[in-house]
Amino acid sequence: MASIFTKIVKGEIPSYKIAEDNNYFAFLDINPIAEGHTLVIPKKEVDYIFDLNDETLSGLIQFSKKIAKGIDQALGTIRTGIIVEGLEVPHAHVHLIPIYYDGQPVSLGKKINVPEERMKEVATLISNSVEV
Amino acid sequence: MASIFTKIVKGEIPSYKIAEDNNYFAFLDINPIAEGHTLVIPKKEVDYIFDLNDETLSGLIQFSKKIAKGIDQALGTIRTGIIVEGLEVPHAHVHLIPIYYDGQPVSLGKKINVPEERMKEVATLISNSVEV
Repeated sequence: MASIFTKIVKGEIPSYKIAEDNNYFAFLDINPIAEGHTLVIPKKEVDYIFDLNDETLSGLIQFSKKIAKGIDQALGTIRTGIIVEGLEVPHAHVHLIPIYYDGQPVSLGKKINVPEERMKEVATLISNSVEV
Repeated sequence: MASIFTKIVKGEIPSYKIAEDNNYFAFLDINPIAEGHTLVIPKKEVDYIFDLNDETLSGLIQFSKKIAKGIDQALGTIRTGIIVEGLEVPHAHVHLIPIYYDGQPVSLGKKINVPEERMKEVATLISNSVEV
């Protein structure tokens, strides 16, 4: 069965899309721990990130770098952090966490509230700053 | 001035070393949040991970994959997670977090106590399971 992320890639489930290329897709996490919290996934459905073959894994981190640079530029972060846990959805995904100040909690589960309108706005801001 | 991590690479500061190659170095975090919590760094001293050039960044994630597979094999994890924050030491580093059970906290700062003897043992166990 297709993962929820594969359904997002296919447009069967709506998302706040940031960018995509042939192999990767980036969209806002709907449970953000910071404004602009983004998920980056390979379109290929593999559960564990370290089971990705070398080429796909390298491509994933390169694509994540482009998105992170877009986040930094669009949102005025001090930098963008990374979390990968991957136990909830069996489809490898990189959490890109915009960090706005030293000491900001970088931990999944501490969800903040971002209104739908602002989610749309943030997705557009990042998307416009990303070159893929 | 050399970063504390560069001093570790050079052996000027002792570490629980796991593995190294020409460009990367892995050692146990002395403030572990789980047994086997490992840091992977490029020998090249660059502050922000997403400022690494494409080749070095890809090499870093490939090297991290080898170490993570070693951790998984040596310590019987369910998988190994990733955290990158990077605000404390201005030398890019990947935290590899062994995950032993679903729901385990994956967040820096929740340090656990691992006696020195066990740190040595864990480093040896992982090191023996890594092929670089």
